[in-house]
This record gives sequence, structure tokens and C-alpha cells, in this order.
Amino acid sequence: MKSLQQLTRQKALYGLPMARLRPSQVTPASRLWQRNFSATTSAAQLAGLDASKLTVAKTETPKELIPNKDLVFGKTFTDHMLSIEWTATEGWQTPRIVPYQNLSLDPSTCVLHYAFECFEGMKAYKDHTGGTRLFRPNKNMARLNKSSARIALPTFDGEELTKLIGEFVKLDNRFIPDARGYSLYLRPTMIGTQKTLGVGPPGSALLFVIASPVGPYYPTGFKAVSLEATDYAVRAWPGGVGDKKLGANYAPCIVPQLEAASRGFQQNLWLFGEEEYITEAGTMNLFVAIKNKETGQKELITAPLDGTILEGVTRDSVLELARERLQPQGWAISERKVRMPELQQAAEEGRLIEVFGAGTAAIVSPVRYISYRGNLVDCGLKKEEEAGEITLQMKNWIEAIQYGDESHPWSYEV
Amino acid sequence: MKSLQQLTRQKALYGLPMARLRPSQVTPASRLWQRNFSATTSAAQLAGLDASKLTVAKTETPKELIPNKDLVFGKTFTDHMLSIEWTATEGWQTPRIVPYQNLSLDPSTCVLHYAFECFEGMKAYKDHTGGTRLFRPNKNMARLNKSSARIALPTFDGEELTKLIGEFVKLDNRFIPDARGYSLYLRPTMIGTQKTLGVGPPGSALLFVIASPVGPYYPTGFKAVSLEATDYAVRAWPGGVGDKKLGANYAPCIVPQLEAASRGFQQNLWLFGEEEYITEAGTMNLFVAIKNKETGQKELITAPLDGTILEGVTRDSVLELARERLQPQGWAISERKVRMPELQQAAEEGRLIEVFGAGTAAIVSPVRYISYRGNLVDCGLKKEEEAGEITLQMKNWIEAIQYGDESHPWSYEV
Repeated sequence: MKSLQQLTRQKALYGLPMARLRPSQVTPASRLWQRNFSATTSAAQLAGLDASKLTVAKTETPKELIPNKDLVFGKTFTDHMLSIEWTATEGWQTPRIVPYQNLSLDPSTCVLHYAFECFEGMKAYKDHTGGTRLFRPNKNMARLNKSSARIALPTFDGEELTKLIGEFVKLDNRFIPDARGYSLYLRPTMIGTQKTLGVGPPGSALLFVIASPVGPYYPTGFKAVSLEATDYAVRAWPGGVGDKKLGANYAPCIVPQLEAASRGFQQNLWLFGEEEYITEAGTMNLFVAIKNKETGQKELITAPLDGTILEGVTRDSVLELARERLQPQGWAISERKVRMPELQQAAEEGRLIEVFGAGTAAIVSPVRYISYRGNLVDCGLKKEEEAGEITLQMKNWIEAIQYGDESHPWSYEV
Repeated sequence: MKSLQQLTRQKALYGLPMARLRPSQVTPASRLWQRNFSATTSAAQLAGLDASKLTVAKTETPKELIPNKDLVFGKTFTDHMLSIEWTATEGWQTPRIVPYQNLSLDPSTCVLHYAFECFEGMKAYKDHTGGTRLFRPNKNMARLNKSSARIALPTFDGEELTKLIGEFVKLDNRFIPDARGYSLYLRPTMIGTQKTLGVGPPGSALLFVIASPVGPYYPTGFKAVSLEATDYAVRAWPGGVGDKKLGANYAPCIVPQLEAASRGFQQNLWLFGEEEYITEAGTMNLFVAIKNKETGQKELITAPLDGTILEGVTRDSVLELARERLQPQGWAISERKVRMPELQQAAEEGRLIEVFGAGTAAIVSPVRYISYRGNLVDCGLKKEEEAGEITLQMKNWIEAIQYGDESHPWSYEV
């Protein structure tokens, strides 16, 4: 299914039928909707996001650093936060770095009722020269804009926000642990802040970025996870919003994950449709490596971007590196749908090479078993192994770029 | 598709295959998930919601009442709010009525990132004796519990919350306009308040209720609305959460509604699947009245509760009243799927009697046209009419119960 933007543009271009009410057919009831609109101003008059206007108010009570070994993902934060307000009448306001602090929100604020919220996950890394780097921030900026537009929140100039994040990271630089596998997790978040219960496009929004120092996902080396295939709940569907990084996609995932956890599985695996297509694992994209039954050719496969999976930055990085470095070795690299029975059959025939999740938190996450219809599908790891060869290689390749060991256009120096 | 609860219960009852990892298969990687868990305490030890413990802190700066004619839905609120905290280790805390005030939330609070939020919409009405009434509050309590459980937020004793809402409404009684069509809109809301970016079940939550005095949806009598059928975006899916009143279901609806509004339509109409089943209009359930082609029998139809539509309280009330009062007059009352082409055909053949939306805000909302594939489907209203006979009758029947003119078990005296 095509995206909303594509379709409406297409209709405009090709003159597909789209009825429009004549003024005589429009009743005063249009106020029902209009009253929920914010005052609209033409986009040209609105202020864009401007990094040069940044103001900085430093904290007077700097926090103590937490020892690396005690870091917990997303639990402690740095001294400051980046905060930028937007209004429908004036556009983007002055970007401000302020001490990390609570938000004061009216209980009618629309983010608390209608999930006007979207976010990104990205990291800042210390390189071996003491410099600080981001990894493909342009991808996060593009995705946040797509997410935001889909729920009627404002868009922004991604380069300006990247600059602002750079300033924020420089200011709180002491929180970035200087050790391989460690980083500063960055959470750009956009919320609707309009104070009304009317369901309509928010007339005001807040874009903020907070930062949490984090350790490696696997502090003592890889540990393979096991997944439970979920057949009783659906995460995403064509024409829905499962391909956007909206808060709305996360809360409904917890109960199926708890169900999986209650039977000993670390994550659930989302299947889609009667065909039981493999889409995502928990909050990661999924890759499978299979040997072709006829030709014996090795194939690295992940689900295509059809609207039912998140456009992961790590997913894209894995694909690009695989095309550059595995394809010359004879691998086929595919974005195609894989049915769960196809995976099970490959496992039974000894053709399933390995399976791994991909996401910002872990980079890659090796999979040992998948529970499917009462069977444990063995994903190809030997008993004493915690990760397959490709999984390990991907982690090393991506980390080398993230930490600046390898000079690469994906690495952005702040 | 069956619900999550039904299915897991079914599996337990009938011993359907469900793999479970043996301890030897569980790697220490289970910490990946466990670290996101809140400390768990057995439910028996946790405090339940207890209305008898209510504390009240009255405002010292009472607000001025807004004249009835200036009331805007969900924009101004009463002097107080009801607020109850919950923690996974202790359960429900002391219910408190406090002055209406901002919430102070850490920017990492999970409601702002992962849409841990659900709500209800209900109203308090002044009756002709000066008493105050709620309408079927038990339905709202049951639905809020279902919504909450689906996103791993706590459940509560609905009778206790109804008592607490009663106390809140009595305290802010002066805000309930004493005029037909006016009421005090009540917004019970549950949010996850855990301060961590780890995606897991919230270890703490806040249940709050705010109240906004509102005028009639149609202050000068009905005004029919027109709808645009949406074929490029999908609101809900079997196995998804479209039947729960989650914040997650609302933000993604705005852009399709703006698209419809840009062509002069007050709301969009959500179709589902290749069959183009009629599901919901904007944020209302939809009813259609059709004359049977063969028998001429009149049939009032709404979509069945198959997981793709909200279990509206007004929808249920319309159905029950129709079965009690229209069926004896020869009407058939049906919860069944209707395809958009079926509706179009009925309109073309002059068999479409009327169409109306149903929801707490408007009770019923008459529909004049539906834009579908470039045509305007005429929903049966005469040019000078703003509502059909059944629509009008339903409004009168339901209002008579809400305002206590008719003694009825649905009306709850506070």
C-alpha cells in the first residue's frame, strides 16, 4: 500500500476522482471540526528551527558521574536537556539548553490523551582521539520528521537539529563513557502540548532531547536471545502507522512481550497475516541467513519496508554493509517477505545459518530459538556459541564506524 | 479474531501447544527484559482503590464561571481534579481531590515516549430537581479497565472510582450548567509515570479525572455533517488495539481528518479491507438505516464488535433502545458488517433511510453525504432537513434518561 503522502500527491497529479463539497453543501456544522483547529498561518510566515539562536543556561548543581558498571539504559540522565517550543502561529521558538528538569504540563495537554508523541533513538560515541561522534544523524532527523508529520506535529530542518544536538553533546561531554561499547544514548522527542480535549491538530508542540549514558547491551560478550512468535496480536498493518516511530506503537507491545517472557522468551516475534510473514522482533528489525535449497547460495534476508515494519537505521546499515562486503563473497542480500514456515523448514533441513535482531540499543542481537506453534525452531547456533559469524561481523563493522576507528561518511563529528 | 485474553485463556484451558524454554535453554540474556520489569509483588499484597480514604484539598482561588454561550468543549476546567497514584510495589495510593493543577513530569516519563495512556469520556447532568446524574458509569469503568490492562497499566475497582467521581462532581457541582443539552464532561485518564526509557510495563501510574463544562454539540438544533470515506489509511486491524480507548488510536487519525476537511468534509469515514466495510466515522460509531430490497423491512445497522471499532457506550445505548422501542414497530436491529458499495447501492435505489454517528460528545450526529470514489452518496436527508427521524428520536430518548426526565437504571444519581 502506498503512503498517505504518495497517494494524496498522486490524486492531485493525475486527477483521480476526489469529491469536494460545494459551498452550498457545506453546513455551518463545519465548525465542529474548525473549532478544533489552531489558528492557521501560512507556512512561509512561520519561523524555522534556527540553531544559531541557541541559548544556554548551565546547571548550578552538576550531577556526579555514575560508574560505568552501574549504568542502566535510560535511567539516569545528563546535567542538561535541549528544549524547543513550537506554535502554529509563530513556528519554532528559540532553542534552549537548560538544566535537566521536569516538564510542567496541564492535565488536559493533548500528549497525555491522544498520544501526540514521537521520538528517535541515537547515540554519541567517544572516539580514540577523544573526539565525539554521532552515527548517521541525518537518518534519525528524516525519520523524526516523517513520524511527526504523520500525527500532525510540526516538521523541522534536520541539519539545524543535528547542530543543536552537537552543542548539547559537547556541553554534557563528560557523561560519555570513554570505553568501547559505551555511549551516550540520545532521545529526541516531540510532543503535542495544546491544552484542550478537542481532538485536532495540536496548536503547540515541544521538541526536547535528553541524554542517558549507557553501557554495552552485552557487557560480557553476546548472549543469544530466544523469541516467541506471536499469533494472537498484530503490531502493524498496511495503511497503519507501524513504520513510524510513534509512541502509539510501543505501549500495545508490552503485554505480548510479557506473555513471551512468562514462558522464558526474551522477546516476541511479530508475524503478520495468514501467510505468517516475519516482521519484527520486539522492538528490533529481524535478519535471517538461509542457504538456498537448490543452489546452496547463502542469502541474508530482512522484511521489506511495506509499512508494517520500522525503517531501522541499523537495519539500513546492515543492508548496506552486507551489499558492500558480503555480496562480493557470494551472498545474496534480500529485502523480501519470509514466511515463518519457510524459516522453520530451513531450520529442519539444516539450511538456517543464523538469525539476529538489529536496532540502536544492541546493534545486533543473536537469536537461538523461536517458539512457533508449540515447537522450538533452532536458529543455527551451536550449543557453546552465543552469536553467529555474520552477527559478530556486523557488530564489529558497525562499531568500527561508530567509534571512528574506520573513517566513514556515516560517522559525524560534533 | 479473538482477544488476547480469550486466546491465552483458551490455550491454558485446552492445552494448545505453547513452548516453554527449559531452564537450561534460558541464557542470562533474560536480564535484557527483566531489567525493564518493575519489582513485582503478588497482587494480593497490593492495595486496591479505596474511595473511603479520599482526602480533599479545596482550592483557595475559585474560578469564575464561564457563561453558557461561551463554553468550548474541553477548553476550560473546574476548580479541582481527582488524582490517584499507583505503584507496582504498593498498589493504589490515597485518592485525593486537589486544586486543578499542572502535572510535573520528568522528561523521561514513559507516557511521553511510549503512549502509556488511556481515557474515558463521560458526562454529569443536572436533572430537573437540581440533582446530579451520571449516565451508565459502569460501562466507562469496565472499558477503562480493559484499555488499561491491554497496555500493562493497572486495573481498579470501577465502583470505587465511580464513588470518587461522584464526590468530585458534588464538590465542583456549581460548574454543571443547569440547562438542557449542557453538562459537565468528565475525563478519567490513566497514564504510565515510570521515569525510564526502557520499554517495559510501567512500575507506576497516575489515574486522574478532570472536568470541563460543555454546551450542546448542536446549540441551535441538529446540523448534518458530511463524511469522506478514507481508502488510503487504516485506523484499526483485527488483533490490534482499535477497540480500546487508548491515546494511541487518536493521533494517527488527525491527518486523514485534515485531508477530509480540506475538501469540505467534517469527518472521515474509516473503511476496512478490500470489502470496504464501514467501521467508524472520525471518532464516532456509525449507524445506517436501510430498507430491505426484497421485503421492504427497515433495518438499523451498526458494525459488530470485531476488534476494529470502539465499544461505544452510546452505540450500546442506541442498540438497546432500538431493540426495545423500534423492533416492536417492525424494525430489524443488526450488528453486522456493511460494505460501502452496499450503502451506495441502497442510496441509489432510494432505500437509504438515514445515517448517523453515535458518541458521548454529540449523542447522535446526522450525516448528509458520504464522499466515496469521487461520488457523493446522498444519505437520505431532505434538503431542508438536518436530521432524520430515528436520529432525532434517539437523541430525545437518550437525553430523557441522561437528564433524569425518565426514570431508568442507566441514570446514576451522585
